Amino acid sequence: MSHRLLVIGGDAGGMAAASTARRRGADFEIVALEQGPHTSYSACGIPYVISGDVWALDELIVRTPQQFRDQLRIDVRTGHRAMAIDLDRRTVEVRNLAQKRTYTLGFDMLHIATGARPRRPPIPGIDGPNVYGVQTLGDAAHLLEAVKAGACEQVVVIGGGYIGLELAEAFVKRQASVTVVEQSEEVMGTLDPDMGADVAVAMRQHGITLHTGEKVTAIEPGAVITSQRTVPTDLVILGLGVEPNSDLAADAGIDIGVRNAIAVDRRQRTSVEGIWAAGDCCQSRSIVTGQPIYVALGTVANKQARVAGINIAGGYATFPGVAGTAITKLCSLEVGRTGVNEREAKAAGFEYVVAKIESTTRAGYYPGAGTIKVKLLAERVTGRILGGQVVGNEGTAKRIDVLATAITAGMTAEDLVYLDLSYAPPFSPLWDPVQQAARRALSMQEAG
Amino acid sequence: MSHRLLVIGGDAGGMAAASTARRRGADFEIVALEQGPHTSYSACGIPYVISGDVWALDELIVRTPQQFRDQLRIDVRTGHRAMAIDLDRRTVEVRNLAQKRTYTLGFDMLHIATGARPRRPPIPGIDGPNVYGVQTLGDAAHLLEAVKAGACEQVVVIGGGYIGLELAEAFVKRQASVTVVEQSEEVMGTLDPDMGADVAVAMRQHGITLHTGEKVTAIEPGAVITSQRTVPTDLVILGLGVEPNSDLAADAGIDIGVRNAIAVDRRQRTSVEGIWAAGDCCQSRSIVTGQPIYVALGTVANKQARVAGINIAGGYATFPGVAGTAITKLCSLEVGRTGVNEREAKAAGFEYVVAKIESTTRAGYYPGAGTIKVKLLAERVTGRILGGQVVGNEGTAKRIDVLATAITAGMTAEDLVYLDLSYAPPFSPLWDPVQQAARRALSMQEAG
Repeated sequence: MSHRLLVIGGDAGGMAAASTARRRGADFEIVALEQGPHTSYSACGIPYVISGDVWALDELIVRTPQQFRDQLRIDVRTGHRAMAIDLDRRTVEVRNLAQKRTYTLGFDMLHIATGARPRRPPIPGIDGPNVYGVQTLGDAAHLLEAVKAGACEQVVVIGGGYIGLELAEAFVKRQASVTVVEQSEEVMGTLDPDMGADVAVAMRQHGITLHTGEKVTAIEPGAVITSQRTVPTDLVILGLGVEPNSDLAADAGIDIGVRNAIAVDRRQRTSVEGIWAAGDCCQSRSIVTGQPIYVALGTVANKQARVAGINIAGGYATFPGVAGTAITKLCSLEVGRTGVNEREAKAAGFEYVVAKIESTTRAGYYPGAGTIKVKLLAERVTGRILGGQVVGNEGTAKRIDVLATAITAGMTAEDLVYLDLSYAPPFSPLWDPVQQAARRALSMQEAG
Repeated sequence: MSHRLLVIGGDAGGMAAASTARRRGADFEIVALEQGPHTSYSACGIPYVISGDVWALDELIVRTPQQFRDQLRIDVRTGHRAMAIDLDRRTVEVRNLAQKRTYTLGFDMLHIATGARPRRPPIPGIDGPNVYGVQTLGDAAHLLEAVKAGACEQVVVIGGGYIGLELAEAFVKRQASVTVVEQSEEVMGTLDPDMGADVAVAMRQHGITLHTGEKVTAIEPGAVITSQRTVPTDLVILGLGVEPNSDLAADAGIDIGVRNAIAVDRRQRTSVEGIWAAGDCCQSRSIVTGQPIYVALGTVANKQARVAGINIAGGYATFPGVAGTAITKLCSLEVGRTGVNEREAKAAGFEYVVAKIESTTRAGYYPGAGTIKVKLLAERVTGRILGGQVVGNEGTAKRIDVLATAITAGMTAEDLVYLDLSYAPPFSPLWDPVQQAARRALSMQEAG
């Protein structure tokens, strides 16, 4: 009998697993179902297409269905939606959307990578015609049409997270008048409010209207109604984060974990033998707290998919978990975070010291030296680094990688102080800003 | 009896130790002797003053003697040279250079931070009037005078290391015709030749004449004579590295270690009770090989000085050693290295795989994405990362910090593959280039 691996989902979580399995010597049939027209694209690049920095949506496509067929013998079926999984019969009911017919496909192994969808809380009007989530190239294409039709003079972004703020900036570049409405007291909720406040200042200086601590109560044609005001709008963007597409798995009886994401073990196995999951539809584990968390990022999806693919091919790999790293560029600022923030540290029961410093991205005397703020959380008594946040000018964001690496290694503030980090005047002060923060943390730790 | 700490050397290795000791509660008298006129300056910034990128030499001064006196009660004596150490009497013979008189100063504790001097191999004419090392602000001032007097139309740099190449670029900016003569087959000997070759290409494209595999046999007034040619010159720069100023310590009977540097333990103690050393005059330990090495860099000097200062004040600190990290910016290229290169790995007896990749500094589709090459050495069997080198466009250099951190933590290529490094299109491809290299290394390791 020839084996069949069936993959549900044609983006990173699915196709990277399929590709890895094939490259690792899997010689069974691989069928991949994707309900949309595209495979493997960089959703993170969408804001830069909207802004015009990137020329066309096609540039975001990493690999086309035809390439998967030709190069990796993967039978990619776009426009095919998985409707239901039958665990007893080991079959999936598939809908050919164009031909409007349904068929049943058997599998020996199943890999679920159904991704996520933009959160749509039950606000009246949220399903209206000019309300867009930004998740797929299809979403992006609609927004681009609106831009080109000149139908977005006034844009409202609901939610002040990464994607929301990136899109706010993109529409400013398109000469739109942009308002961001954020329910919390501060934007960038993955940062602590004191760091998020710097982002808010930069956004406002850039000409973006920011209403924080304000709840959207309704979306009407031509206006967003908040707890405080009515904001006229041509276009509404949802930037409220995403939630996993886990219904298919849940309906079949596969275990669901944190935040409604599919539960997986370190090998990306679901609760059912021979069924795997990776990417935005499934959960991860925090290497800081040891707890399951939900992180919908392309980096995580690709790593989980790699692990799943190796295991599916009969190899052995485990996913160690995520530090919780994320960066973005917003107007003049670069922003990064890793590990836990104060809210998360408290929730996990950590006692910690907070060290915060302001320094320069280059040697202070070197042309182009900008400002960088670093905030570190270090565990009390042990000094173990629990989390870090950076906000600053050019050269700031990628510094978070040192902290992500140090956290993964279980390093303490003292370890960080003595790390042999690189220095040259065009790139850094003599003590790198992350080490300046570590020195501060260490002295606080020593002071008890 | 009031205690006295005597510090010999007014740059980082000395003053950072004195400052740390004072801040850590040391209430004894601190006297610091410096033969030159300046304390605590950034010698690494000199090329950028020569090039004109940095306005004045004064900008490189971190803290003046008067500031040390006022803020930290450190009795800094500039223009005072330590002539000899008497270990039996616990005294130092001091020469007041301006007044041309000598006196004797007792100490309870002595901290030696005599720094390093440019290497001057026995080439005829190397001590001639237009031959400059670049170590002190005084050296820099002489070079600046030459620039301003228009006396450097033709410049020859002997040695193709960091400082030599940085100065070559600086003089090109001053419209000089610059020739670099390097004895080895490739420039940047701290990199492997295949990576150094990229630097050579960039330097030549920048208009610098590069003669590699060529030995300087003599320096004459107006010309440098090599094994192959005579190069006319107004000014000769020595870029042959430095050697420790350890004679004072050696003459007193203090143990000398590798490369003629002062031997110290992990607390920065010399072989003699109550005598410490830090900075370019003393040795370090490689965290990769475990062997003593000599690294003359400001980052190392400051960390060693911090450790010495804490211990001198009665605290406890140890210096864990160096990864061997260094970066620079040369013309259009950023260059970095950490850990061991192939030559060093072989010398230490390591068996290793070499993974080399070429990628982009940003997402390939994002404007401004440049090229980056990453070379990784991973130990055979264990996969432990032994060293890394990066050469590329803007955004390249500081990526070496992740590798330095990973090496310090003893991480393997597989650990590096699954690190939660940051990604956003303006900063990185989805798999950071260092992780692309780690994937390559891992697959080579798995293949045996």
